[in-house]
Amino acid sequence: MTAQLIDGKAIAADIQAEVAKRVTALKQRGLTPGLAAVLVGDDPGSVSYVTSKTEDSAAVGIFSETFHLPESTSQEELLGLIADLNADERFHGILPQLPLPSQISEHAIIDALSPAKDVDGLHPANLGRLLRGETGGALPCTPHGVLQMLNRTGNDPAGKHVVVVGRSTLVGRPLAVLLSNKAKGANATVTICHTGTPDIGRFTRDADIVVMAAGRPNTLTADMVREGVVVIDVGTNRIEDASRKRGWRLVGDADFPAIREKAAWITPVPGGVGPMTRAMLLVNTVSAAERTLA
Amino acid sequence: MTAQLIDGKAIAADIQAEVAKRVTALKQRGLTPGLAAVLVGDDPGSVSYVTSKTEDSAAVGIFSETFHLPESTSQEELLGLIADLNADERFHGILPQLPLPSQISEHAIIDALSPAKDVDGLHPANLGRLLRGETGGALPCTPHGVLQMLNRTGNDPAGKHVVVVGRSTLVGRPLAVLLSNKAKGANATVTICHTGTPDIGRFTRDADIVVMAAGRPNTLTADMVREGVVVIDVGTNRIEDASRKRGWRLVGDADFPAIREKAAWITPVPGGVGPMTRAMLLVNTVSAAERTLA
Repeated sequence: MTAQLIDGKAIAADIQAEVAKRVTALKQRGLTPGLAAVLVGDDPGSVSYVTSKTEDSAAVGIFSETFHLPESTSQEELLGLIADLNADERFHGILPQLPLPSQISEHAIIDALSPAKDVDGLHPANLGRLLRGETGGALPCTPHGVLQMLNRTGNDPAGKHVVVVGRSTLVGRPLAVLLSNKAKGANATVTICHTGTPDIGRFTRDADIVVMAAGRPNTLTADMVREGVVVIDVGTNRIEDASRKRGWRLVGDADFPAIREKAAWITPVPGGVGPMTRAMLLVNTVSAAERTLA
Repeated sequence: MTAQLIDGKAIAADIQAEVAKRVTALKQRGLTPGLAAVLVGDDPGSVSYVTSKTEDSAAVGIFSETFHLPESTSQEELLGLIADLNADERFHGILPQLPLPSQISEHAIIDALSPAKDVDGLHPANLGRLLRGETGGALPCTPHGVLQMLNRTGNDPAGKHVVVVGRSTLVGRPLAVLLSNKAKGANATVTICHTGTPDIGRFTRDADIVVMAAGRPNTLTADMVREGVVVIDVGTNRIEDASRKRGWRLVGDADFPAIREKAAWITPVPGGVGPMTRAMLLVNTVSAAERTLA
């Protein structure tokens, strides 16, 4: 068996088209959804992420503005900007690009966001509502994107055993909660594995669906999955590759070439989960704008 | 093999003694921890729970007061009381006894609590911090009690496979998160099963530890566990029993007599998790008082 590829780019494009329609409808009611991106310092990765997000926003008709502060910004200064943006009616979403410089507590900044404008879905109030089984607010982008990928390829997780490898606040923990929700497109039996699991293969071999969010190449090998498994790979790791001009390439947490011969479905890296995370940010922003009219 | 009993009453008594020492230390610093219990209506179960909680508080030196409102109380009236109690420095914990009458939204009341005084650990901000892996705030009482029972009987869940049956906001979901934390006394691989799991036995048979929080008698039978398993039974179900004067008795979710012959450890019902839940409320209250001095 050679797995079908789960094309994150194509699914993300579908979602962007849906968002664009919702933006048009809002504009007809006189409301332009707005996203404030906050960038502190000049880390090339962060600059590139913020650029992509504002370009994505423009493509679907969302107004965006980037607030670029120097690396030396103090926590108080950044909190001041967040307070201003919380009060600024042009913006329905605020996106502090992580990581922040070491003199600033990321939790302090996230906690200062108005939960209604927290389009990353990382404010404790939003995470708490998720743990309470509510899905009406902003959901963390990557876990929400994973759910969309499964459901939009006919891989409804209901009644399936899903093994999530990784317990980060950004991905693993909220994803396990989302997948086990008593809700359409969820309702899975979920196992969370992590660095404290002595034998991850014991669990993944029993899985109908494996989601890798460990952040380490080759954490999932072909002997650790059964024929016909569905693999979603959230990992994006740089590994040396002398054959490439730049000297490296991106790989996920799964041994893609070998598992592809055994799985029913698998996401490529890049081009899998990454575009979905970006698309779900647009969904959260337009949803936040819609809620201001509700 | 006949299982050793996990004596919730005895462990709870140890915890109460620890709390009493902390209360004494606070009083020496001029602070008396205070708990405000809020009871709406006259449901006999709720009245009895609130009475137990205030008696427990008195036994460890915590000052408590019960605010008893009529069944017909409106949501606005109750929100007014909560606002008063949030501002009242005598009280470090506020406990709205659930369930509330149908004209009142439980979420609206819980959301109105000051997170610092939410000694049930159910405010979204506290649940969100839990999902973020922080354990410094108030933890939900029953999940926290289950962790204590395991660790205080030498059943450290680290590296073990724990299967949690039930996905309630009160027990199953937060317990799964707590158990999978990268923290001392946790660090387990966790599977969450529920009514959407086609074959729960497939998972419980593989478990080192099973936590039952399904709310249905005989959901766990002896053929569903392996020799030497540890079973924590959160269920408290009334079943008919003609041999009792009152006509019923309490049972858990597990078939206790049969599983007792196969397990290494098992909690009785009653006398297992119940007393632990009550003890953890005292822990949360004294911790909330301590934090006001920090």
